Amino acid sequence: MNKWVYNFGFGKADGNAEMRDVLGGKGANLAEMNKLGLSVPPGFTISTEVCHYYYKNNKEYPKELLMQVNESINEIEEKLKFKLGGNDFPLLVSVRSGSRASMPGMMDTVLNLGLNDNTVQALAKASKDERFAYDSYRRFIQMYSDIVLGVPHEDFEELLEAEKLSNGLILDTELKTENMKSLVGKYKELVRTITKEEFPQDPILQLWGAISAVFDSWRNQRAITYRKLNDIPEDWGTAVNVQAMVFGNMGNDCCTGVAFTRNPSTGDQEIYGEYLINAQGEDVVAGIRTPEPLSKNSINNSTNKQDNSMESKMPILYKELINVFKKLESHYLDMQDVEFTIQKNKLWILQTRNGKRTTNAAIKIAVDLVNEGVISKEEALIRVDANTLEQLLHPTLDPMEEKTILTKGLPASPGAASGKIVFNPDEAEALSKSDEQVILVRTETSPEDIHGMHAAKGILTGRGGMTSHAAVVARGMGRPCVSGASEIFIDEINKTLKIKDKILSAHDIITINGSTGEVILGKISTVDPELSEYFNIIMGWSNEVKTLSIRTNAETPEDVKIAKRFGAEGIGLCRTEHMFFDSERIKFMREMILANNETERKKALAKLEPYQKEDFKEIFTIMEDLPVTVRLLDPPLHEFLPKLEDDNSELLETTGITQKELKNRLEQLQELNPMLGHRGSRLGITFPEIYEMQTKAILEAGLELHKEKNIKVNIEIMLPLIFSSKELKILKDNISRVSEGLLEKETYLPNFIVGTMIELPRAALLADEIAKEADFFSFGTNDLTQTAFGISRDDAGRFLETYIEKSILENDPFVSLDYKGVGELIDIAKKKSRNIKKSIKLGICGEHGGDPKSINFCNKLGLDYVSCSPYRIPIAKLAAAQATLKSNSK
Amino acid sequence: MNKWVYNFGFGKADGNAEMRDVLGGKGANLAEMNKLGLSVPPGFTISTEVCHYYYKNNKEYPKELLMQVNESINEIEEKLKFKLGGNDFPLLVSVRSGSRASMPGMMDTVLNLGLNDNTVQALAKASKDERFAYDSYRRFIQMYSDIVLGVPHEDFEELLEAEKLSNGLILDTELKTENMKSLVGKYKELVRTITKEEFPQDPILQLWGAISAVFDSWRNQRAITYRKLNDIPEDWGTAVNVQAMVFGNMGNDCCTGVAFTRNPSTGDQEIYGEYLINAQGEDVVAGIRTPEPLSKNSINNSTNKQDNSMESKMPILYKELINVFKKLESHYLDMQDVEFTIQKNKLWILQTRNGKRTTNAAIKIAVDLVNEGVISKEEALIRVDANTLEQLLHPTLDPMEEKTILTKGLPASPGAASGKIVFNPDEAEALSKSDEQVILVRTETSPEDIHGMHAAKGILTGRGGMTSHAAVVARGMGRPCVSGASEIFIDEINKTLKIKDKILSAHDIITINGSTGEVILGKISTVDPELSEYFNIIMGWSNEVKTLSIRTNAETPEDVKIAKRFGAEGIGLCRTEHMFFDSERIKFMREMILANNETERKKALAKLEPYQKEDFKEIFTIMEDLPVTVRLLDPPLHEFLPKLEDDNSELLETTGITQKELKNRLEQLQELNPMLGHRGSRLGITFPEIYEMQTKAILEAGLELHKEKNIKVNIEIMLPLIFSSKELKILKDNISRVSEGLLEKETYLPNFIVGTMIELPRAALLADEIAKEADFFSFGTNDLTQTAFGISRDDAGRFLETYIEKSILENDPFVSLDYKGVGELIDIAKKKSRNIKKSIKLGICGEHGGDPKSINFCNKLGLDYVSCSPYRIPIAKLAAAQATLKSNSK
Repeated sequence: MNKWVYNFGFGKADGNAEMRDVLGGKGANLAEMNKLGLSVPPGFTISTEVCHYYYKNNKEYPKELLMQVNESINEIEEKLKFKLGGNDFPLLVSVRSGSRASMPGMMDTVLNLGLNDNTVQALAKASKDERFAYDSYRRFIQMYSDIVLGVPHEDFEELLEAEKLSNGLILDTELKTENMKSLVGKYKELVRTITKEEFPQDPILQLWGAISAVFDSWRNQRAITYRKLNDIPEDWGTAVNVQAMVFGNMGNDCCTGVAFTRNPSTGDQEIYGEYLINAQGEDVVAGIRTPEPLSKNSINNSTNKQDNSMESKMPILYKELINVFKKLESHYLDMQDVEFTIQKNKLWILQTRNGKRTTNAAIKIAVDLVNEGVISKEEALIRVDANTLEQLLHPTLDPMEEKTILTKGLPASPGAASGKIVFNPDEAEALSKSDEQVILVRTETSPEDIHGMHAAKGILTGRGGMTSHAAVVARGMGRPCVSGASEIFIDEINKTLKIKDKILSAHDIITINGSTGEVILGKISTVDPELSEYFNIIMGWSNEVKTLSIRTNAETPEDVKIAKRFGAEGIGLCRTEHMFFDSERIKFMREMILANNETERKKALAKLEPYQKEDFKEIFTIMEDLPVTVRLLDPPLHEFLPKLEDDNSELLETTGITQKELKNRLEQLQELNPMLGHRGSRLGITFPEIYEMQTKAILEAGLELHKEKNIKVNIEIMLPLIFSSKELKILKDNISRVSEGLLEKETYLPNFIVGTMIELPRAALLADEIAKEADFFSFGTNDLTQTAFGISRDDAGRFLETYIEKSILENDPFVSLDYKGVGELIDIAKKKSRNIKKSIKLGICGEHGGDPKSINFCNKLGLDYVSCSPYRIPIAKLAAAQATLKSNSK
Repeated sequence: MNKWVYNFGFGKADGNAEMRDVLGGKGANLAEMNKLGLSVPPGFTISTEVCHYYYKNNKEYPKELLMQVNESINEIEEKLKFKLGGNDFPLLVSVRSGSRASMPGMMDTVLNLGLNDNTVQALAKASKDERFAYDSYRRFIQMYSDIVLGVPHEDFEELLEAEKLSNGLILDTELKTENMKSLVGKYKELVRTITKEEFPQDPILQLWGAISAVFDSWRNQRAITYRKLNDIPEDWGTAVNVQAMVFGNMGNDCCTGVAFTRNPSTGDQEIYGEYLINAQGEDVVAGIRTPEPLSKNSINNSTNKQDNSMESKMPILYKELINVFKKLESHYLDMQDVEFTIQKNKLWILQTRNGKRTTNAAIKIAVDLVNEGVISKEEALIRVDANTLEQLLHPTLDPMEEKTILTKGLPASPGAASGKIVFNPDEAEALSKSDEQVILVRTETSPEDIHGMHAAKGILTGRGGMTSHAAVVARGMGRPCVSGASEIFIDEINKTLKIKDKILSAHDIITINGSTGEVILGKISTVDPELSEYFNIIMGWSNEVKTLSIRTNAETPEDVKIAKRFGAEGIGLCRTEHMFFDSERIKFMREMILANNETERKKALAKLEPYQKEDFKEIFTIMEDLPVTVRLLDPPLHEFLPKLEDDNSELLETTGITQKELKNRLEQLQELNPMLGHRGSRLGITFPEIYEMQTKAILEAGLELHKEKNIKVNIEIMLPLIFSSKELKILKDNISRVSEGLLEKETYLPNFIVGTMIELPRAALLADEIAKEADFFSFGTNDLTQTAFGISRDDAGRFLETYIEKSILENDPFVSLDYKGVGELIDIAKKKSRNIKKSIKLGICGEHGGDPKSINFCNKLGLDYVSCSPYRIPIAKLAAAQATLKSNSK
């Protein structure tokens, strides 16, 4: 018989922490915590295999499940002496999702299950608190009806508001027992009206309804979006955890809270958490009431200056909690994110998991754990998600600039951002698609807002604490967030944001600082960030461990400088065409393209040469003796031409052509598929004078630097879009002719080698022949992906998302290298070329060069280097170190 | 010591017919003829290796060459008792090119070399004909000066015309000895004026000048063009043949002629040739005088009805010639093209080679040779150039139509063509690029006209015989040609063509019939050709021998019928999108594309379905039980949309969208690189309803045909542009759902299998995975070529020619499959897929399916079939047979 259900409780468990695949993260931890001897409410986990079965079999369950669930309930009932539907001591349970990866708030949860018209009275009797019992029942009806029966929760909230209004009450806590009872009646009536059936009274019926609702919620829209954003596979599925309820809302000797065992924002060794007295867990997470801090130290961060910390209010229980935290950290060897409830002064641990953290915190915690002797350097390197480093590297607000601070909220996710105020997540997404920077401003966020949060540069909310939905999600996404800014008021109808007496409209610009909680008027300029000592330690360890060399893709002196500062070990791709777009130069470029013959073309090229030479001199000066790979002109010429509707009078004058001729030329140069057109080395073959000019500029730059500053440059001239060794041979011969021409006048010639991009499938397949003519290969994985897949990157938007949703592709192949297809081509090229020329230098210079997964693949293949954009260099270094560690551990 | 020079003469030779690589075709045959015992003027061949050396070493010669040439000359002088520059018996020589492949008229030749102011007198004495001697000297000065010294030949012709004019003469033959002497003086003066030097008198200097000129002519423009048109590699090089002169112009007991041993136009077993009494060889070839036929039988074909045939005029020598022809045919086992000269009643054979022939002749000769027991069936199949079969298959002039015959010339190259009159080869090329059909009309053609002849649909000349330049080249190219139409007169200045009293202008339309010699006014409609019994024999033998199956790419009933008639063994590619372009259907297609949601889209698709079903029924009815591969919709949807500037009122009305919305939609659907865009199976994934409609139409067509006519169809549903097995799986499941849906109502379901195009590199690399989901693969070599090379076929025009000129590519990869790159992908896919699924059916369906070289490659790979356009099926069958024979012979 298959085992579908795993019990836990009373210091024992069927599962353990290793069984995340089957039990989900929550289920595995509940089992593990039981084994650790913590007091965890007993329950059972329905495994993820049931989820697979459910979706494969038209939402039916395996036959044995019913029996196994019944047995588990019986066991809880027996040991706890509470009974589901029991009239004396009714057992109430929670029903929660729990997948292999954490997906906070994305799936459904039902609490207080087991309440009905009878058990509510039993609960009142047992807890000696009638108000609490009916409050729980009312909450349960609302939650269950919303999730399982499809009755909108707003309808219940309307009834609640009406009840308060008609009794002149403001806070929920002011509601009396009668109010609760009255509400229960009204809620049930609402359910009857909408569903045409009575609210279900049988706890077993309730239970199966809730279980199905949780399984169904695996495929709700927000869960799908979240998985897409976080690269979580569709086929993992969720487990369902059914667990006895404990209550944080049975009076003022009760509370509920969440805590991180270290500060998830800074990594500091302090308890970071919040709690609410006389409340249930969802009150904390949903941000409906702003909670109080756990420890006294945190008071400063809060907007509320009164000391309501748990440390002060419940000192003994606080100490017990701290001890639990230590136990958990020393067991899991990492910072934990813990949910707990205190019921009548008894501490129950509801959940623990490795806590999400900011990148700064991740780095500091990892380094601290090494210093505390808990983990090794190598383990520390593995702990930091390389992708997240980028957040640290971007500029922060200029402290010297004067700021009009409008208000201050909680510093919920660090970093700063400026942008247009937008109140609606759909609009945020739409505007960001047209490259607008927006700040999403919401009273509170909910899982439906995720796409808008992702599109926004920053998030500002009026309610909710440091662990509210907005805060957790923003930290996960690396978006700055200020939460709980209680002084802001959003007028949805007039689309205005009122802060104290200031009224801002939609699309006005504000700046938020998620590290201080400040909300600032207008746009604030930024400065380069100070990189922490912890960051430098991690980089140092990465350099020690990694074997791949990390170069950069850069051509402006600014970018080259940034890359050098981040430790670039060379330039892997200097795109010369970017140097032609300056307004001064583009006119000569256009003259060149419009030239009628070689002589005219050469005349225009001669005007461009001094500019190119100066550019190269600047770059070479910064890079000194580090290798610099210069790629000769790549894009189709028409990219440089103006539009017909532009004012082209100057161009027409200098070139002496007419408007009509310009039109003809533009049409002539138009291409149906420019990506596959007259570009790359094809330009070098048909117009040799272009590459000759560039070669001359490169070599003379090196020559002059040698004379002027005694710098010995290391040049790698790279030819793009080669598909045949003969192309390369012809172009190499032309380069040699230029260098021999220089040697006739000079005694010194800078060091240079000649290589090629491998960015077409044919080039990869013929890599042995091509290697004979090349000193190095640089895999242009962007174009190689385009041609291997037959997908134009610019046109892929229409179907790529569908392809990922339908699991045809695991991820966007332009972000993470497709190792099966494109990777196979690289592997073929590597083997063929090294077979012919063992010493050939191999690297990649597509966008993939900054992507950790792709870097891991390049490391496995044994390439020599990867090249990425300047801001991704630290990421690439860490990822390269992680790749080395992974390959060593095999 | 390297051997650079090979002697022949007096029944002996250093070389033989096998040494074409080193001696060129002419040199090898001269050697071979000597060995056969024919009387061939003695001489020597400077090998092609000297040509390689010459071009590699900056036009210098190997050191040993001078000595070897001197030795060879000495030997000729000793044996022939004539001496170069000798005052008694001066030796005159010809210096001719000769490459491995025949390139008639493309390179330079110098005759009469050795003449100077002294030897001309000796020649006069020896030949007892002073006029002949000075005529030869004058010709030599002109030819040598033109070719070696660069003095334009027109300048000499002007002097000749002036000489005739001032003496009241019309024909060259009327010139007296004094005229010749006077011309020699004037010619030498012309050379002095232009070159500032005396015409060279030293025969050895003359010889080396001529040798270099011949080597140089290997790289003149017309030779390069010819090689490109005929796929002759640049690196073969030419040999140079130096041979003692014999003279056909020493009086009326002399003549010179060319002959084919069988009729090269029809293949009939008759002597087909021409001769001129008292003339040199170039007079025949250049078409300056219209020659007389060799045999009496040929008189009917000639415009000149008087019997001046050699058979009547020189009966004994004619018989001797016929005996030589027989000897040559039985030695070379093929029809020969022979040049000969009779000097003072002594027959000299100057050259023999396998004769060029029309396709009809090639077929008949091959079959006849089998029947004569000379060659085997297999050898006969190899003898016919598969590519040329296409000429036979196209329609000919409708015999029932009334024709205004303007005049009649010689039936120089069979076939018929209509087109605009064009007098200039450049204009012919330009017009043909804009898809105009043109007839090139020239007084006579020369090698400079080749590009225009290639561009024209037919060629008409006023002068020249059946072996004139125009006739030989036109037959080689498969262009119809009427030559020697002596009644036509071209007025170059007014751009008119006068035929008798009719005056036609440039761009007026005429029709020529190269099989009858008729020149006809206007355009004449055509009828399907009768295929000869010989053609059918060759096809029958091909079917016996070939192992590849030959299918067709066709979707209109007309094309399918033609293909079936030519023996198509199935349809390899039925492009469903071609069925949507009809004006009735395109509007539903547009409705579908402009639909806002699935429901509207399905509504539009439902309107298209009946049309599709009817199409399939027609096709299936023709093909009966032969396999029919139907490819589901492939191109990007915007290809079906109208242009904004069109009248779209009907479309706007039916769809209810506004002009502005249409504009938006058009812009939305626009793609930067449509070739790599939202097309192929990507449409099937994002809009499943499209492929579902098509599947339904296909299966229901099969179903209804079964009911109505008891036809059991064999359907292969093919999915385009797949790069992953998961795509294929999803689409296959959708197809299954449709077929299961049909089975719910029907008891019979037509036979069908599901497969995919392999047209993206990734699909080839992952062929093992994809094969698990596929019953067959069809390699889409067009797109596979585009993606492997990164070349858009539509944009390749700008550089592909340069790439072929520079030998980067051997030929256009869209015409002949690139076996190194694209072929490697096919090979990988074959191995991987057959490894997983031995039975998987493999074929190709790109344009390459009708290209003999590519077919040979597919045969070598062991594919199951190729698919090509209907008119190429016979070519494909013969090519497939040849491929089998080639692979067997290895």
